[in-house]
Amino acid sequence: MSGARGWGAMGQTIASEELEFLKKSLIFEDLDDATVSALLEGSLLQRFPVGTVLFNQGEIPDFLYLVLEGALELFTVGPDGDDTIIEILEAPYTYTVARGLTMATYLVSGRVAWVGKLLMLRGGLRSLIAENLQLSHNMLGLLSRQFRVMVSQVKNLKLKTTAERLSCYLISLQEQQLGAMEITLPYDKRRIAARLGMTPVSLSRALAKLGDVGVSVKGSRVRIGDIDALRDCCKPDDLIREGQEDLRLVTGP
Amino acid sequence: MSGARGWGAMGQTIASEELEFLKKSLIFEDLDDATVSALLEGSLLQRFPVGTVLFNQGEIPDFLYLVLEGALELFTVGPDGDDTIIEILEAPYTYTVARGLTMATYLVSGRVAWVGKLLMLRGGLRSLIAENLQLSHNMLGLLSRQFRVMVSQVKNLKLKTTAERLSCYLISLQEQQLGAMEITLPYDKRRIAARLGMTPVSLSRALAKLGDVGVSVKGSRVRIGDIDALRDCCKPDDLIREGQEDLRLVTGP
Repeated sequence: MSGARGWGAMGQTIASEELEFLKKSLIFEDLDDATVSALLEGSLLQRFPVGTVLFNQGEIPDFLYLVLEGALELFTVGPDGDDTIIEILEAPYTYTVARGLTMATYLVSGRVAWVGKLLMLRGGLRSLIAENLQLSHNMLGLLSRQFRVMVSQVKNLKLKTTAERLSCYLISLQEQQLGAMEITLPYDKRRIAARLGMTPVSLSRALAKLGDVGVSVKGSRVRIGDIDALRDCCKPDDLIREGQEDLRLVTGP
Repeated sequence: MSGARGWGAMGQTIASEELEFLKKSLIFEDLDDATVSALLEGSLLQRFPVGTVLFNQGEIPDFLYLVLEGALELFTVGPDGDDTIIEILEAPYTYTVARGLTMATYLVSGRVAWVGKLLMLRGGLRSLIAENLQLSHNMLGLLSRQFRVMVSQVKNLKLKTTAERLSCYLISLQEQQLGAMEITLPYDKRRIAARLGMTPVSLSRALAKLGDVGVSVKGSRVRIGDIDALRDCCKPDDLIREGQEDLRLVTGP
């Protein structure tokens, strides 16, 4: 199909298996081939080295980024020049939708946290949305899902203690790592602290607290002595299975 | 016009000035009269007494709520039966859009915080979105804006200390109250603490801390001795003027 063509000087050719993957993603779902081609026209598929800054807070978006591999980290630079990580977005995750649509400035800066492959959709997206009902609906579903993730973050930040947030996070890692009782932290403690909305000092204290329920840490390895005791600490919110939800716009009555 | 008709047994007739107000809101903007009528068909305009619970967490949404007057508070009930306020939404503010569209369960419960007038749009909204491009775009603009408010909340919760959040809040009240140096807190301290994402004890500590820059409190009255010193505490984020942004979907190239 015509979307699977060569790309600009910066970009790579999109492989047919990538195109199939994309067509299953929420943005591309149920679009006809002509619209998929038009969306990909002028877009870039690009690998970036770790640390590449893609956008700075206060800038107007050029692209809507889709993270296909790797991860982005969002950060802000304070008046003292220090940067603080706000969030880490791992593939597959779409980012910058709200900004890409409204042309509002970025509230945060974004850089590649580890080797990332990104699809960068250009402003043509917005012209297509102007005329394409299915694409509008896809974007509504996507934004609804992202909104829900943010609400669950606010809920966690406001309701849970640092130890509760940490234990929920460890349990989610344990599930991802197929129930192993010794799990590997996916990144360094500074990033984990930022992701969980606490300082590195608070993270160390929370880890120490979880020692009481059999959690021990050695470098990036965490041993879970008693999974049930850890679950009791977490007070999981059954309404939120972050990242596992597959929300879509429901257009029935 | 035909949308300004009578309502069901529960509801009030929508006044023509209310209809004009609605037609300027982001959901109704640029819709033709037939679509406005169809949207309002079967909807309810209703005043509720303080404390009325409109929906419970875990339920599937019946309505999309628009807060026309008063305020909603969102809360959760913990395993111990205590409720914690997550957020207070003051009119004019649209809520429950993401849930109304996707039919995902509510993550939080909602009740009337003070006398509220609500427009409750029924599921017919979703059928209309299925066929109406302008309405889809209006909802995209609205969701983008709500998403941005949530991002700024997460950013504030993760980056700012309790005293910084409190001083930003006092400054926003001072601006709303036309620059008065003695301002009135709009609700009790438990609610203000919840809104700012801190415990009532942390709020008291933060207030005491701001005493050093000339803030004094007596009941619901707060005196700001030195506005410049208070501004220095707040470290405002110029990128976020919460509630003052008027984002819309940009459909140009």
